Amino acid sequence: MLTVGIIGASGYAGVELVRILAQHPRVGRFVLSSTSFEGGMIESVYPNLLSRVSGELVKPEAVVAQSDVVFAALPHGVGEPFAALCIEKKIPFIDLSADFRFGDDEDTFAAWYGKKYVKPELRPLSVYGLPELNRAAIKKASIVGNPGCYPTGASLGAYPALKLGLAGSGTIIIDSASGVTGAGRSPAQNTHYPDCADSLAPYKVGGHRHVPEIARNFQAMSGKSVPMVFTPHLAPMNRGILSTLYIPLAKPLGAVSGAPRPASAEIEAAVKEIHAKYADFYKGEPFVRVLPYGQIATTRNVRMSNYCDISIHSDQTGTVLIIVTAIDNMVKGAAGQAVQNMNLVLGFEETEGLNAIPAAF
Amino acid sequence: MLTVGIIGASGYAGVELVRILAQHPRVGRFVLSSTSFEGGMIESVYPNLLSRVSGELVKPEAVVAQSDVVFAALPHGVGEPFAALCIEKKIPFIDLSADFRFGDDEDTFAAWYGKKYVKPELRPLSVYGLPELNRAAIKKASIVGNPGCYPTGASLGAYPALKLGLAGSGTIIIDSASGVTGAGRSPAQNTHYPDCADSLAPYKVGGHRHVPEIARNFQAMSGKSVPMVFTPHLAPMNRGILSTLYIPLAKPLGAVSGAPRPASAEIEAAVKEIHAKYADFYKGEPFVRVLPYGQIATTRNVRMSNYCDISIHSDQTGTVLIIVTAIDNMVKGAAGQAVQNMNLVLGFEETEGLNAIPAAF
Amino acid sequence: MLTVGIIGASGYAGVELVRILAQHPRVGRFVLSSTSFEGGMIESVYPNLLSRVSGELVKPEAVVAQSDVVFAALPHGVGEPFAALCIEKKIPFIDLSADFRFGDDEDTFAAWYGKKYVKPELRPLSVYGLPELNRAAIKKASIVGNPGCYPTGASLGAYPALKLGLAGSGTIIIDSASGVTGAGRSPAQNTHYPDCADSLAPYKVGGHRHVPEIARNFQAMSGKSVPMVFTPHLAPMNRGILSTLYIPLAKPLGAVSGAPRPASAEIEAAVKEIHAKYADFYKGEPFVRVLPYGQIATTRNVRMSNYCDISIHSDQTGTVLIIVTAIDNMVKGAAGQAVQNMNLVLGFEETEGLNAIPAAF
Amino acid sequence: MLTVGIIGASGYAGVELVRILAQHPRVGRFVLSSTSFEGGMIESVYPNLLSRVSGELVKPEAVVAQSDVVFAALPHGVGEPFAALCIEKKIPFIDLSADFRFGDDEDTFAAWYGKKYVKPELRPLSVYGLPELNRAAIKKASIVGNPGCYPTGASLGAYPALKLGLAGSGTIIIDSASGVTGAGRSPAQNTHYPDCADSLAPYKVGGHRHVPEIARNFQAMSGKSVPMVFTPHLAPMNRGILSTLYIPLAKPLGAVSGAPRPASAEIEAAVKEIHAKYADFYKGEPFVRVLPYGQIATTRNVRMSNYCDISIHSDQTGTVLIIVTAIDNMVKGAAGQAVQNMNLVLGFEETEGLNAIPAAF
Repeated sequence: MLTVGIIGASGYAGVELVRILAQHPRVGRFVLSSTSFEGGMIESVYPNLLSRVSGELVKPEAVVAQSDVVFAALPHGVGEPFAALCIEKKIPFIDLSADFRFGDDEDTFAAWYGKKYVKPELRPLSVYGLPELNRAAIKKASIVGNPGCYPTGASLGAYPALKLGLAGSGTIIIDSASGVTGAGRSPAQNTHYPDCADSLAPYKVGGHRHVPEIARNFQAMSGKSVPMVFTPHLAPMNRGILSTLYIPLAKPLGAVSGAPRPASAEIEAAVKEIHAKYADFYKGEPFVRVLPYGQIATTRNVRMSNYCDISIHSDQTGTVLIIVTAIDNMVKGAAGQAVQNMNLVLGFEETEGLNAIPAAF
Repeated sequence: MLTVGIIGASGYAGVELVRILAQHPRVGRFVLSSTSFEGGMIESVYPNLLSRVSGELVKPEAVVAQSDVVFAALPHGVGEPFAALCIEKKIPFIDLSADFRFGDDEDTFAAWYGKKYVKPELRPLSVYGLPELNRAAIKKASIVGNPGCYPTGASLGAYPALKLGLAGSGTIIIDSASGVTGAGRSPAQNTHYPDCADSLAPYKVGGHRHVPEIARNFQAMSGKSVPMVFTPHLAPMNRGILSTLYIPLAKPLGAVSGAPRPASAEIEAAVKEIHAKYADFYKGEPFVRVLPYGQIATTRNVRMSNYCDISIHSDQTGTVLIIVTAIDNMVKGAAGQAVQNMNLVLGFEETEGLNAIPAAF
Repeated sequence: MLTVGIIGASGYAGVELVRILAQHPRVGRFVLSSTSFEGGMIESVYPNLLSRVSGELVKPEAVVAQSDVVFAALPHGVGEPFAALCIEKKIPFIDLSADFRFGDDEDTFAAWYGKKYVKPELRPLSVYGLPELNRAAIKKASIVGNPGCYPTGASLGAYPALKLGLAGSGTIIIDSASGVTGAGRSPAQNTHYPDCADSLAPYKVGGHRHVPEIARNFQAMSGKSVPMVFTPHLAPMNRGILSTLYIPLAKPLGAVSGAPRPASAEIEAAVKEIHAKYADFYKGEPFVRVLPYGQIATTRNVRMSNYCDISIHSDQTGTVLIIVTAIDNMVKGAAGQAVQNMNLVLGFEETEGLNAIPAAF
Repeated sequence: MLTVGIIGASGYAGVELVRILAQHPRVGRFVLSSTSFEGGMIESVYPNLLSRVSGELVKPEAVVAQSDVVFAALPHGVGEPFAALCIEKKIPFIDLSADFRFGDDEDTFAAWYGKKYVKPELRPLSVYGLPELNRAAIKKASIVGNPGCYPTGASLGAYPALKLGLAGSGTIIIDSASGVTGAGRSPAQNTHYPDCADSLAPYKVGGHRHVPEIARNFQAMSGKSVPMVFTPHLAPMNRGILSTLYIPLAKPLGAVSGAPRPASAEIEAAVKEIHAKYADFYKGEPFVRVLPYGQIATTRNVRMSNYCDISIHSDQTGTVLIIVTAIDNMVKGAAGQAVQNMNLVLGFEETEGLNAIPAAF
């Protein structure tokens, strides 16, 4: 049984790792750290864990020293020294920050995150941990840069369209909304209940840090630079990211009417074909569910699970492919995907510990 | 003092008319009808009205007979006979359904609503009631087709870009989300609390009936056909529509980097100029607030008011103008705009009875 | 037209005063202060006010100097010097803190709030501002201690039972739940959206500071000490306080069955009689609505209004009177009641500026 | 591996059984029935189950015929014939309706549910399935009457106080609030999103059907009739029941002050002793967590789990014991407890399949 270390266990991503891994059949013990609550007990910070997980919050160095695998759920730019310690100790390091998402493209990281790599020499040992894109490489990696929440939903939605050449050269629009857990545990004005309940609020319009990560994934998927625009919104819900992707098609799905008219039967038939291609593309992927034709992805159907649900649509003119994806931002968008990466790195069954069925309500 | 008639007063739009008009300085009395609750009292259906508005729910014909102005908040396709009665009686008819939104373009109406006009001869007497677009015509109209909720937010957001030639020829994407009151008063599975709380759900992707209304408005605003895509979402909130518009620009705002980089100072300066143009465009409009540069429109800041808040942004490459608009779907998106139209038709001050300050919480 | 001063205008109660008073027919101008945002503009802190209220946030002394009436929405224990300044200037001071709620009973204030009176000599000039209890005295007061939110709902619910001798000598239980605006504007862990959404949480069980205020009101209403227990809960909603009161009856409403059985017809008839007494007791009160027999008070029917809705029930045995009251905690529970007190103090119509009809949705 | 039958699988309790049992290590296969969706697939009604549970919805008779154990999640009064079939087939029948909660006290059932027993002869084979009260009997039963949601939280909160003689002879008040899933899957006006969001609403005040079930449990726990009052409320959340119990103490915890004062140190010490007794009482109970002294039970800390959290408090006078309990109404309040009963009946480890850790967010 593994001893699992989590650096930054008192944040939302950290404690979600605890919740998931406490039910993982290979995990025997935790070593947890927290800067904010060092010396305290994790079950005092999160009373939901009472009688199930108990652990003193120690220093991060102690985490590395005692663990067989280490997760870091830290702010960007502070975890690299612990990665180096893990490399030295020859144990895997799975990082939930952006530090290892950009490989050797330090310039892009620096342009968006405002800091340079602390230990650039670690990059050749690292891989971007989107299993559906990089599974083989992840299995051999020592360090995994776990994807951002928005990039996970956006990238899985566009992948088949980019890979199969359905997408044209036009700009892909990604309009996403996240539940408030995406903002983390620290109280702030915009996550104060009365400020975000019963309201919908875009933020960082045109300039969110997930832009370069999505752009890089699109390039990896299509083999070329893909123009894209991404806008995140804060939605009054706890969990979930819904992404609506607008992908200009390489060729229209049918003859276009002069006046605005509902999609023709010709267009609908063509959408069905694209749906079949998507379903085929993701056949065998344990955590991607291409919904039956006619259904629409919603966040409630993936809540508390590691699934990414995808539905396929077209606009009324058959010129824009509309893809909707839904994930639980804390699971497939963070801790669940990190566990999926751990399973790959350690050679376990990819789905171990990730069998939770979504709770529709 | 006016006697105001409301046909369909027990639906959400109908009772919102009651709530607003009961505080209108020109309104003295109501005559209300309801098919579902005929013979009952409005304050029994809506106990919030207790001690403030009391009225038996009568037949629609009685409403027309006793009123000085008539609002109809009915399903599409059933209100035309009452419009005809009002014309006969020479009193204004303000219709919240889609019946009078398409003027003489019956084909488009028929293609999306599945029915033909009952009394096509009424169309020359009617006008589309978006005051910011059609103010002069509304003042002279006998019948007003009050705009749809989504088209109001989408159209006001795009109007300056289209009118001033900022928009290029690319497809405009409109990604919108509405509070659940937009679905009306009748319980349904998708509006059942546990089905929509804590979740975000697109619906009618690529085929919502507001597509042709938005397309028609865009054409009226720009003088030419504008390719557009619109996707509505259901958000877990009571009131509000947030629309995020992606408008491909006629010319880029600055030199584009080869790699994904944050917007340059050059781009930011150009966005500021567009912001100034928007602010100038809407100067004097009593219900459109172009937010100070740097702020972002959110639904909570317009809640319970007739305002449309608009904020101006660009993507990181300066090729796509991103406009965010926020309205209260029940006020500027329905009943408030209908009262604004009543004020115009009857020659009152346009803002009378519509002075509610938004409730930020 | 009045110049109204608000000390502490950037908190929730302060800005709710702004929102209400900006629509009050007697108010012409504001002078606003804020410690947190001194030098800033109120419409920057609250963008919902844009184009409607604009004002620099000044020092509190400047507020007193320029105003005809002053409201203070400050933490407990810091407002007394400003009250003294107002007395000196001979203008009314309406205080939303607890400082003037206990009159000359400084011991009780000190026992619960942990501080002594700063200027005890002001107490003879002050009155407790529950209009339904103290209307005549309020009209003559210079300083009004505006009631706490929970005490308002609890006291109005119990008043007739205590005054008319319906209540026996047993302990009255008050179980209340408040929307999150009751916790104020400052972000905290327990008001962080993910911490309070989709959850119900009691707090300060057995020891909330509103206990002595409720107890004192009960004594004032019944003429004797009344044993009482009060528990507040935080509910996942923005506005509203629902209070469920359990009042042991002086005499049972009917014969009691040996086994648990639904209330008998005899009991129901007796409840109807009590309902009639409540309705009669509050006849003429502009802001208390005793609901028709058979209806149940809920917070949504008073939202955004100054009403207190009250419904009357009994348990199945007819030995406990169950009274439910609903208020909007920000209006009748804070700013609205303060305006009601201003109207009384200044000799205006009691309902001026308080005519908002509740928004059922 | 078991074949599990669920009659009424398309309701919320039914599908929650599916969700829990699909992760139970002893369960191999489902046979599901639904009146509303007969002939359809469960994963079409609940797309969250996609790729995890697939099953045609058959007739209830087919469920009994093919299963090793049968759960019924049906309206009251219709399931008895299926219980009889199971008895005939010698397989356990676990009933989530009220039909088997009252044993041979048909009069009480009839008085509150308005119908008589269909097959009274089944009652000697049945037991009331609250494991903490009836564990031994449940292990030997053929039919289990699974408790109501509110009675579960209320009874577990009062049990130690009643059993240990802490409670006096006064009336116990139970003030409870439930998430909206408690109202089931069928849309209705009071569960329509805009009607219950942002509001708190009592219902069936003084007359809810769970009154006699709670009263009966209190009697079973204390050995005598206990006066009690119960009021349910609908809270704007999906899951959870919070119950606040007010239990008059047999003897006061300390000297009572003449004026309202915070609880004395003497009282606090006495509450700590009661806390220790509660903790001791429930030691070894796998699903009851008596929280550490000083913490307060909230629904979010039990969400998605079978736990009942309990916290112990007193009022300021030390005369009323205040107990707060929190359960997930769909798990410990319905499907989870039913699985716990199945485990007992079939001789499995009581916690099998019920190891979900609560999700704090």
